[in-house]
Amino acid sequence: MRARELAAPFPTVGLDTSALDAARLLAGSNLPGLIVVNHQGQPTTVLAGTQVLRMALPRYCIDDPTLARVIDEEHADRFLTDLADRTVAQCLPDERRELPVVGPDATVLEIAALMARARTPLVAVVAGRQILGAITLDALLDRMLAT
Amino acid sequence: MRARELAAPFPTVGLDTSALDAARLLAGSNLPGLIVVNHQGQPTTVLAGTQVLRMALPRYCIDDPTLARVIDEEHADRFLTDLADRTVAQCLPDERRELPVVGPDATVLEIAALMARARTPLVAVVAGRQILGAITLDALLDRMLAT
Repeated sequence: MRARELAAPFPTVGLDTSALDAARLLAGSNLPGLIVVNHQGQPTTVLAGTQVLRMALPRYCIDDPTLARVIDEEHADRFLTDLADRTVAQCLPDERRELPVVGPDATVLEIAALMARARTPLVAVVAGRQILGAITLDALLDRMLAT
Repeated sequence: MRARELAAPFPTVGLDTSALDAARLLAGSNLPGLIVVNHQGQPTTVLAGTQVLRMALPRYCIDDPTLARVIDEEHADRFLTDLADRTVAQCLPDERRELPVVGPDATVLEIAALMARARTPLVAVVAGRQILGAITLDALLDRMLAT
């Protein structure tokens, strides 16, 4: 089986999308991650769900569990509100990781290895400059375990 | 809001569970990860979905994309079959990461920071030695965005 047979339609977010809308899309549609596309519609980043969460969190809270603990409950409950004022582009991580993108001929082993290496349960399938769709970890396992 | 209010029932797998059954549980129930418990029912590991996938993959395929590419399609399609002969304990990663576990009083900020730090969209909630339930990234965002 090849990537083109596994690729399914998947929503994308733009660089100018509000970060809060991106989080709402992730949660509302129960997605494992998000595909961020540039103005030409090409994927620039594929974010795992935990990386979307990371966009909302102050760096010191991620690095040091004791600092997250001293924020009182009332303020802790509002940790997502800062996302409303920022775009996805403004929240993207600085570090450039391997882009979880495969071509249409990638085998399931290549796709699985990429998911494991990038720790992202979602890869985009692209042909040339066009997105054919996406493959989620769940869809990959569903297909492999059924055969 | 605190972890005890967010904790929901979540299936667990044992150390002696077949790794293939663990992968089937993940895929069949569309879970974001798995909670592995020891013989006393205490969580020993919480695995993100991509870490479950990693259990099935030869190390060389994860490390080197070009090696995954030379395996032909027929063999690539069977990459999960090796899991049938192994238990979860035999497949667990050697590296010990921070255990994605919180107490019942953890705030949503602490839970979110732990998910982001451990890159695991799933945390177990424990009181003493007992699992109260689990919180998924999706459930956390759903609750936070609804309020």
